[in-house]
Amino acid sequence: MKSVVTIGGGTGSFVLLSGLKKYPLDISAIVSMTDDGGSTGVLRDELGVLPPGDVRKCLAALAQASPEVRDLFNYRFTNGKLEGHNAGNLFLSALEKVTGSFIEAVEVAGKILNVYGKVIPVTREDVRLVVELNNGVSLQGENKLDDNEEVRENGVRGISFNHEVEANEDALDAISKTDFVVIGPGDIYGSIIPNLLVNGIPEALKNTKAKIVVIANITNKKGLTDGFTAQDFAKFIEGYLLGRSVDVVIYNTQEPKEELISKYEEQEGEDTIVEVERDNDRLVIGKDLLVDEEKHFIRHDSDKLSSAVVEYMKDNE
Amino acid sequence: MKSVVTIGGGTGSFVLLSGLKKYPLDISAIVSMTDDGGSTGVLRDELGVLPPGDVRKCLAALAQASPEVRDLFNYRFTNGKLEGHNAGNLFLSALEKVTGSFIEAVEVAGKILNVYGKVIPVTREDVRLVVELNNGVSLQGENKLDDNEEVRENGVRGISFNHEVEANEDALDAISKTDFVVIGPGDIYGSIIPNLLVNGIPEALKNTKAKIVVIANITNKKGLTDGFTAQDFAKFIEGYLLGRSVDVVIYNTQEPKEELISKYEEQEGEDTIVEVERDNDRLVIGKDLLVDEEKHFIRHDSDKLSSAVVEYMKDNE
Repeated sequence: MKSVVTIGGGTGSFVLLSGLKKYPLDISAIVSMTDDGGSTGVLRDELGVLPPGDVRKCLAALAQASPEVRDLFNYRFTNGKLEGHNAGNLFLSALEKVTGSFIEAVEVAGKILNVYGKVIPVTREDVRLVVELNNGVSLQGENKLDDNEEVRENGVRGISFNHEVEANEDALDAISKTDFVVIGPGDIYGSIIPNLLVNGIPEALKNTKAKIVVIANITNKKGLTDGFTAQDFAKFIEGYLLGRSVDVVIYNTQEPKEELISKYEEQEGEDTIVEVERDNDRLVIGKDLLVDEEKHFIRHDSDKLSSAVVEYMKDNE
Repeated sequence: MKSVVTIGGGTGSFVLLSGLKKYPLDISAIVSMTDDGGSTGVLRDELGVLPPGDVRKCLAALAQASPEVRDLFNYRFTNGKLEGHNAGNLFLSALEKVTGSFIEAVEVAGKILNVYGKVIPVTREDVRLVVELNNGVSLQGENKLDDNEEVRENGVRGISFNHEVEANEDALDAISKTDFVVIGPGDIYGSIIPNLLVNGIPEALKNTKAKIVVIANITNKKGLTDGFTAQDFAKFIEGYLLGRSVDVVIYNTQEPKEELISKYEEQEGEDTIVEVERDNDRLVIGKDLLVDEEKHFIRHDSDKLSSAVVEYMKDNE
């Protein structure tokens, strides 16, 4: 059985993993640990726990437990003081308190959810994202990247951590032993790069014999990836790989519906839809990766995306 | 394998079930559904769910899952807006929302916790306890029984529901088929009688061929069971059994430590310690049922109590 390590966090990883779990693969999902918005942010602030949100999404994606247990893990309370809290986040945080370790909490939750594969927090340490804007302003907190007019107007110059953190050795181990690494899709600054800023991860990616696959996002975000092409995603990620190259970029070729494009462009500017550079010698694979019948969002389809990844893996065994 | 149905709720049931689960028995725990204090009360008020607290305690008592999962189920948050909420309660309430039914939530939780036996809410309906005091005042809510000076001073004349409710058919079924029914220990008005007020339960207890065992509490509570003897617990319960008799009363014979008795008497009055009536022809079994080395509470010991119950069952097969 071939092994694959995914690197990301948030919805992008959820979509990819939900598809990959249908294949006979040894899956390890490495997850960024800088989320501090919403229910996760409140739990970090009030309970002093590590961020459960992204890990929860990956656990839910790989869960093979009954639908009720999976629904429970995704349930969001809608009333009273619990309003906005996700039940899965509360369990992970309670388990962290009970076991004394977030890593152990993830293991126990993985058993309850009968997870196919392994979910690996990229670090065991508490860390916050620092976002530096082109106007010189520094913002602390990953949540500052969400729907922030200041970010949109000025653009992000770079991100860093508020202090150095070491990689979870399970993450390093998984990267060194795997056949394939898949980075993305996901927010570059919110989900992808926060993994690559962790001490040890760039070296592990540089030294692994695994093929490195990058999934380009379908749309760009104003102030974050303005005008990025599919190849730009790989180039940007390579900036963190200590000279190692990305082996292939997989990108979407299917044009979203006109009205959805207009809606996105209104928010994110003219170059919202990610294109491929035609005269560029990087290996790229273009496929229809788009969700059919999606009314509100331009998104990767779980089955199409995982099928494209698995096809590449078969061609490159 | 002999079958036993326990009837109660709260700590008393937890103690009894924690011991009974060590024996090869077919256990069904019928649980009262009128709790509305603490974390449970907040969840009922804010989310409109059925009361999870007593069911949670019984599930935890019978759980065979890993210690971490059991600890999770008992974990109480200590900070922020979650302060005072029990993780197991949140779990059950989220599951009720997800499945649309508290009964189904209990079943799913039972699977996660790998419960030995079955936990059966006495009714599927939402109901509140009404407490009538000897001075004619009516109080709504089981929580009014907790540490309430008005109750202590005036004493309870009786309790009722705010509207009629029907029994969960699983409870009726369990009572009709079982070999033994064990009622108590527990708060008479808070945990025991709220089961017997449910339509159908008295008839089921009247008609079952099972032996009915009552566990007398070790201590009395002022305003609630002032001066109760071991036999009085059975007599009081028989008031709800439509003419059916209790077969045996099991009571504690071991004197608690002097300083604990003084502490209790200060709070609950002179007749705190439950005695047995020597010239009374009811079948009683007296045993040392007391927790050794307990510093703060006068309590049944789980192993001693279950051992006494099982011994009676063996003698009466």
